[in-house]
Amino acid sequence: MKIFGDIRSGNCYKLALLCRQLNIPFEWVPVDVLSGETRKQGFLEKNPNGRIPVVQLDDGRYLSESNAIMCYLAEGSKMLPDDRFARAMVLQWLFFEQYSHEPYIAVSIFIVKYLRNPADRQLDLAAKREPGYRALGVMDEQLAETDFLAGDDYTIADIALYAYTHRAKEGGFSLEDFANIQRWLETVRQQPEYVSMDNALN
Amino acid sequence: MKIFGDIRSGNCYKLALLCRQLNIPFEWVPVDVLSGETRKQGFLEKNPNGRIPVVQLDDGRYLSESNAIMCYLAEGSKMLPDDRFARAMVLQWLFFEQYSHEPYIAVSIFIVKYLRNPADRQLDLAAKREPGYRALGVMDEQLAETDFLAGDDYTIADIALYAYTHRAKEGGFSLEDFANIQRWLETVRQQPEYVSMDNALN
Repeated sequence: MKIFGDIRSGNCYKLALLCRQLNIPFEWVPVDVLSGETRKQGFLEKNPNGRIPVVQLDDGRYLSESNAIMCYLAEGSKMLPDDRFARAMVLQWLFFEQYSHEPYIAVSIFIVKYLRNPADRQLDLAAKREPGYRALGVMDEQLAETDFLAGDDYTIADIALYAYTHRAKEGGFSLEDFANIQRWLETVRQQPEYVSMDNALN
Repeated sequence: MKIFGDIRSGNCYKLALLCRQLNIPFEWVPVDVLSGETRKQGFLEKNPNGRIPVVQLDDGRYLSESNAIMCYLAEGSKMLPDDRFARAMVLQWLFFEQYSHEPYIAVSIFIVKYLRNPADRQLDLAAKREPGYRALGVMDEQLAETDFLAGDDYTIADIALYAYTHRAKEGGFSLEDFANIQRWLETVRQQPEYVSMDNALN
């Protein structure tokens, strides 16, 4: 299996971390998201939506959307429970991540760190504060009740939300008021075969 | 099962249409999204993220996120295939819908139709044009290859994307250049037990 991705992207890191934890071998094909490579024809043939990560299976078929790929890879493992309600809870958090968390927290990190905080994005950045903090509040409330987001077990929902939450500071978000999130971040780091973003491809 | 929703919301309509097509009985509990009801304490106890739809199962448990709820309801039916890759394709389109389509097309409809196109949202609205049309282009390209979004069968991916695409005009998007989308919208309308938004609760 090939993963086309940029390891600086949390959405791509999700797959590297999951593959490591599930012991799934992969070949990483670097794609530079900042150079516009994902909007060029060669890449659009892999994913017409022009986003990373994209996975190419051994039979040649492509899959995109980080959270859909995680569901595919985790099928049959403890990271995606079989129980119908437990599985729905995992999906609930995966959709929460893409709709209510990533557009605020991940995009803030992107603007501040990778675009180097340009003047013409400051209004945009400011508008992300309130919904970003609201998303963190929703997570913290859940983590006051359960060890992990979808319940008492570590699942792909935790990987999905760990990917950008652990870097929220780089987007200007303080986690100081979110004690449950802080405890959970540490618990994620203690999972077997955990690997940090910096070491995910080593 | 209770569905807390506002039938003017495409995300809520998804569930009414799916339940009708799968013959799942439900009680509809109206929530007025325009009155701020979803941000009040009584509602936040059902979904701390303050969004509709929310489902309450007969055992009292709650589920949120329209696409996660559809996966829960469609489990075991043809609307969510068992085959691992086919299922991943459905999920790919569900995540595409929430990340690359809904924030542009659904939110444009909301601004134009429900907020009555206020002056202070015009910049916001204009910024949604290009990514909204890009999402429609991605769909059209897929629908040039296959009858439905995730392949040759009608699935919850089609319901998810039908919900707002068939109303794109109300958000200022023309479907004129998307012949494959137009054909697909008509095919969706011809599915057994199809019900329009206006009649979904009758």
